[in-house]
Amino acid sequence: MSDAAASVRPVGVAVLGMGTVGTEVIRYMTEHSDELTARIGGPLALRGVAVRDLSRDRGLDTALLTADAESLVVRDDVDVVVELMGGIDVPRPLLLEALRRGKSVVTANKALLAEYTDELAEAADGSGADLYFEAAVAGAIPVIGPLRRSLAGDQIERVVGIVNGTTNYILSEMESTGADYAETLAEAGRLGYAEADPTADVEGYDAAAKAAILASIAFHTRVTAADVYREGISRITSDDIESARDMDCTIKLLAICEKVTRPEGGQAVSARVYPALLPLTHPLASVNGAYNAVVVEAEAAGRLMFYGQGAGGAPTASAVLGDLVAAARNKVLRGRAPGESTYAALPVAPMGEVSTRYHVRLRVADRQGVLAQVAAEFSTHGVSIAQVRQTEVEAPEGVEATEPPTAELTVLTHRASERALADTVAALADQEAVTAVTSVIRLEGVDNE
Amino acid sequence: MSDAAASVRPVGVAVLGMGTVGTEVIRYMTEHSDELTARIGGPLALRGVAVRDLSRDRGLDTALLTADAESLVVRDDVDVVVELMGGIDVPRPLLLEALRRGKSVVTANKALLAEYTDELAEAADGSGADLYFEAAVAGAIPVIGPLRRSLAGDQIERVVGIVNGTTNYILSEMESTGADYAETLAEAGRLGYAEADPTADVEGYDAAAKAAILASIAFHTRVTAADVYREGISRITSDDIESARDMDCTIKLLAICEKVTRPEGGQAVSARVYPALLPLTHPLASVNGAYNAVVVEAEAAGRLMFYGQGAGGAPTASAVLGDLVAAARNKVLRGRAPGESTYAALPVAPMGEVSTRYHVRLRVADRQGVLAQVAAEFSTHGVSIAQVRQTEVEAPEGVEATEPPTAELTVLTHRASERALADTVAALADQEAVTAVTSVIRLEGVDNE
Repeated sequence: MSDAAASVRPVGVAVLGMGTVGTEVIRYMTEHSDELTARIGGPLALRGVAVRDLSRDRGLDTALLTADAESLVVRDDVDVVVELMGGIDVPRPLLLEALRRGKSVVTANKALLAEYTDELAEAADGSGADLYFEAAVAGAIPVIGPLRRSLAGDQIERVVGIVNGTTNYILSEMESTGADYAETLAEAGRLGYAEADPTADVEGYDAAAKAAILASIAFHTRVTAADVYREGISRITSDDIESARDMDCTIKLLAICEKVTRPEGGQAVSARVYPALLPLTHPLASVNGAYNAVVVEAEAAGRLMFYGQGAGGAPTASAVLGDLVAAARNKVLRGRAPGESTYAALPVAPMGEVSTRYHVRLRVADRQGVLAQVAAEFSTHGVSIAQVRQTEVEAPEGVEATEPPTAELTVLTHRASERALADTVAALADQEAVTAVTSVIRLEGVDNE
Repeated sequence: MSDAAASVRPVGVAVLGMGTVGTEVIRYMTEHSDELTARIGGPLALRGVAVRDLSRDRGLDTALLTADAESLVVRDDVDVVVELMGGIDVPRPLLLEALRRGKSVVTANKALLAEYTDELAEAADGSGADLYFEAAVAGAIPVIGPLRRSLAGDQIERVVGIVNGTTNYILSEMESTGADYAETLAEAGRLGYAEADPTADVEGYDAAAKAAILASIAFHTRVTAADVYREGISRITSDDIESARDMDCTIKLLAICEKVTRPEGGQAVSARVYPALLPLTHPLASVNGAYNAVVVEAEAAGRLMFYGQGAGGAPTASAVLGDLVAAARNKVLRGRAPGESTYAALPVAPMGEVSTRYHVRLRVADRQGVLAQVAAEFSTHGVSIAQVRQTEVEAPEGVEATEPPTAELTVLTHRASERALADTVAALADQEAVTAVTSVIRLEGVDNE
């Protein structure tokens, strides 16, 4: 069979970008070419690699290198384009042109997909090409494939994931060392876990792009990055982490996609990214460091979890190679992958309609009647309190006790809408007895409401 | 799009068997027919359901029911056959006939697949039909799809799974209650977690069939149930569980598939099922009750884990429906799933060549020199000891102390071959100072050897 496969016309591959992932993909294609040929049913042939800097030695036949990505992707002997350059404006026209010409595309570019999947999918549909992007979400972990194929007969209700390694590393470190955010971020930068400009990671933009992709596939609808509500981890303090521990919880940056019923009836999709409390018993709570995991809840399947390395050259290359094999196999067998499916065309629920639980910390005057007053405010806005804890605020050593004396209130609510909670918090901030609403963190992963 | 899809010629479906899973599959097909039509690109049409007892009311149009499965599967208007009857001799010719006629098959029948995948795949290849069986391993958890598709570009090194819910329930219960095996099995039977004849589960036959399927797909080779080394959990005692706890370990029935290098060089595949110690920090250690999980270690991807419900009507139906959508979509689009891939054609490593670590408990005479004597025996056979613990054996209350006094030795070895370990145990049993080798349990999941 291997001999027969080797005699099939090769599937021509163009690789755009030769960073960590691109280098690994090319190494694999070379080192495991026999296995890949057998699995595809025909050999792969690397036609060229588009790079920015032609002068750098990449341990590759220089005849394969080109700075002219446009000419490479339109070559007649290129059947599959693997895009690993990142960014939006440069790859977008390249991939569109490739797809229009019937060349299949494998990409790890979440930012591009979160915004332009529709136009890319349309181009692919028009020419019968495939568009694959397993590597765009959660690195090596198969998530797109399972959602799109394995669960195609089920009704997905919810997808909750830890999909950003940098923020998960920072939160895990804050928890284990007790250090605060700024210090931990700096250390993460020194160790290579955070980029020089960490904004995309720590402010949740990266996770939001992934949430948009996951929500679109899980619910057969179109969600873009702009539809995703987003909060980052930069305001999480070591006090928040400690307070979470007191409640047998941990804090994780979650990407949450779920189907919700609108107040006026009808279904909508909610996609959001924020740091949230998770009970230590939740399967995502023990996902630490640079690991990623995605929990999927489906009507028939129940709760599933997919866990593994969410970033890095080799893990991401694994996902790219899996897609490359599938795309190449389709070229050999003239098959097609399932295309984009957006038949459900669900509206995106405004954040105010979303409901969850909340952990609210307040600094209040330590005098009689204040607790009742605070509780009444929650009640007025229809937010039911599940638990409340009052602790005296002690002045740090060497500092005089505060005057008037203050206390900290920690309130855990039952499920309430974001709107009701926001109204409550605004009203509390106006109360004379409330010095400050120190923090509001959502609580996820508790079935009992 | 939904309207266009609805006007496509329906994909005819025959369901064989209407137990828990079959009932759920049919209910879903009915309740979610619009969604399924949109996802497939054409409607499904249930042509008939083969059952043994026609007289039972199944809440289904009786015209759809038939006792004649043979006539049903060959009908011209049947495109996909969903087999959920179980057993080997009855479904085997039915599925072969269906596949030979170009009808795709979706089956959850692990016992049949573990023995006859080759002939089923050959029939499918001959006619261009698809053979899908995601539901045969780990219920709702996508495992076959990820191994076959998502990881198609990677090199899988190892697959370790908890793939039998009954035994996992029993071991979890023994651990949490301290009860012994017989008592826990009886309770599992009363609660419906164990069948009236639990042999297939507790003796590891079910897990062995799944290991054969996983090894075949992961390593692109052919492994049948008979190739799988198998030990069940019936000899695990509450002492074993307690002893595991003392070492910060738990005991799980594992299905292990790995690529091994043979002593004379060359690669082979090892597939085996046995109860093993796992460190509590291992991701599989916290998979409790009726849950299943599969860990995959691949060269590029690193370690991945897939977790979810491994059995039950609805979860298994989810996997069946995912396959049904894929098979039906291929009928509509004239595509084909990747077929069986056995190009690697690896030999199966004899168990004696497999190496792992061992936890050996011995009852020995409590006198000077015995420990040295026991240690020497391990050393003679090339088995290196990592840890040893000696405890006095106290006579139970009301019973006279044993004469001569005995002690218990717990030995943890470094990695050694099964052959060397077996030779060591045989030699120890012959030593005058050794009263009994109480138990030998393998230790898995420890990277440090």
